Amino acid sequence: MSEKIYIGVDFGGTKILTGAMNDKGEMVCEPVKVSTNANDDSGKIFKRVTDSIEGVLKKIDSSRLAVNSEKYKVEGIGLGVTGPIDIKNGVILECPQLPTMHFYPLKKMVEGFFPLPVYMNNDANCLIYGEALFGSGKGMNSIVGFTLGTGIGCAIVMDKKILNGSTDSAAEIWPSPYLDGTIEDYVSGSGVSKIYKVICNAGKAQQTADKTALEISQLAEKGDPDALKTWEEFGTHLAVALSWSVNLIDPDIVILGGSISNAYKFFSSRMEKELRKHLCPTPAERTKVVCANLGANAGFIGAASLALNNV
Amino acid sequence: MSEKIYIGVDFGGTKILTGAMNDKGEMVCEPVKVSTNANDDSGKIFKRVTDSIEGVLKKIDSSRLAVNSEKYKVEGIGLGVTGPIDIKNGVILECPQLPTMHFYPLKKMVEGFFPLPVYMNNDANCLIYGEALFGSGKGMNSIVGFTLGTGIGCAIVMDKKILNGSTDSAAEIWPSPYLDGTIEDYVSGSGVSKIYKVICNAGKAQQTADKTALEISQLAEKGDPDALKTWEEFGTHLAVALSWSVNLIDPDIVILGGSISNAYKFFSSRMEKELRKHLCPTPAERTKVVCANLGANAGFIGAASLALNNV
Repeated sequence: MSEKIYIGVDFGGTKILTGAMNDKGEMVCEPVKVSTNANDDSGKIFKRVTDSIEGVLKKIDSSRLAVNSEKYKVEGIGLGVTGPIDIKNGVILECPQLPTMHFYPLKKMVEGFFPLPVYMNNDANCLIYGEALFGSGKGMNSIVGFTLGTGIGCAIVMDKKILNGSTDSAAEIWPSPYLDGTIEDYVSGSGVSKIYKVICNAGKAQQTADKTALEISQLAEKGDPDALKTWEEFGTHLAVALSWSVNLIDPDIVILGGSISNAYKFFSSRMEKELRKHLCPTPAERTKVVCANLGANAGFIGAASLALNNV
Repeated sequence: MSEKIYIGVDFGGTKILTGAMNDKGEMVCEPVKVSTNANDDSGKIFKRVTDSIEGVLKKIDSSRLAVNSEKYKVEGIGLGVTGPIDIKNGVILECPQLPTMHFYPLKKMVEGFFPLPVYMNNDANCLIYGEALFGSGKGMNSIVGFTLGTGIGCAIVMDKKILNGSTDSAAEIWPSPYLDGTIEDYVSGSGVSKIYKVICNAGKAQQTADKTALEISQLAEKGDPDALKTWEEFGTHLAVALSWSVNLIDPDIVILGGSISNAYKFFSSRMEKELRKHLCPTPAERTKVVCANLGANAGFIGAASLALNNV
């Protein structure tokens, strides 16, 4: 019996990362990584996507001609694309990170190129989908996941399906109201920078220069009290986003991914303390918050999982 | 062919309302209403539940002996019980409104009494479930509903199923953090009273007496400026609960029920204005917020729908 293989493409504004996995979520070859060069015209970028898929097909000893070899059967291709996208129709919308590809019917185009079923969702959903099925959420039925990076991404996975919602906007919590603005003003990379600046400048005549979340994390590593305080405050704000999400969905587990989750040890204690106060009694006792564990591969594994589960 | 009939029991701390419907959600007789007398011992209260079911069975010309008559077939019984309850096992937990029935295995007991399948969920979920299937949400696939009464109840219905969550706590948003406390401190009957008191007492030496949400609604009806201002402020707070919920679930529609939704005309304009600011672009344009329309019958219709959909 031939092994079933699924291709996943993590298609962002900076890079295109393409890989292949079997039905257990195990990678079957090294992924292929190319730069997006997002300002090139759409045809060139599309070619990079198909080239990287072909690169992976070659790597798994399965060229387009050999798709139906006896050893392997490539079952489908999943695309995880930086949003906003029209999930149902597989079209890129007015995505700021892909300025030349607005209204590009990517799913149809890839379908025309490979004799395989093609699936498409947004990259943040795919990242959490990969983690939910084959990473930190493995074996769980309902998962709420967050990607904490430049902004706050969120995705909900139930019964092995991504909740897309009525208008493909489910789990898009970034504009939700919090304090004087939105939750994303506080729970995001720029949020961390702002919190740090306020803490540093308190009572000082001279203004501190802007620092990135990564720099503030490095300062915390060295024991810098302002940086440590920043991450604690971030933990308080993150707990707000988590409590609304857990109270609404009551998931089996919460997963934190994205670059900012690398600072977990600096914010987790405060976040846990605040979160438990804001939850219903049973989730307060039981619902665990964990870090993502697939690293940079989560996105294409999640995209490949779209093909695995035909969703 | 016999008509399929489903019995629903709306079992609260004050009253037990029991009715019967067909598979289109149409009532097939007048419901039976009795007082709970919640301080009586559990055996007496249980008898009131079974008596009211028998009363309804008689009304539909279908006694226990005639359950399988040729004209009717009673297919099952649904129980909507004031919470907290253990949904999976059909057990009443430490419910403050049913002090003598803690850990009462109601579902099993009713199963022992009638030769019919029995289903159980909490009353707030059933109310929204009834509205979702046969009231304001009819024809929609995903619904977020709120019961605005003494507290803030919420339920999520997707694909004709109530989302129960991992620990039967899905949609329990009441402890979610907001301003100096929880969202329920503001979006609830007592929240309305508090808002009114603060508005009335602003800059006055003498304290205003407490007023209920109903009284504040009656004052608003007469054009009282403090009451009108109270409902506008309530609209702002309600918009916060709604925006987190809509941003997470991205439902087809939002339904507002419960006694406080009767003041809709006083808070809706402000609520709509604030809500649209806090949503993602597409839901901000498309997602409608409407009032419940089944009135007091929503609870037992929702409970009967548990039996209809075997959930």
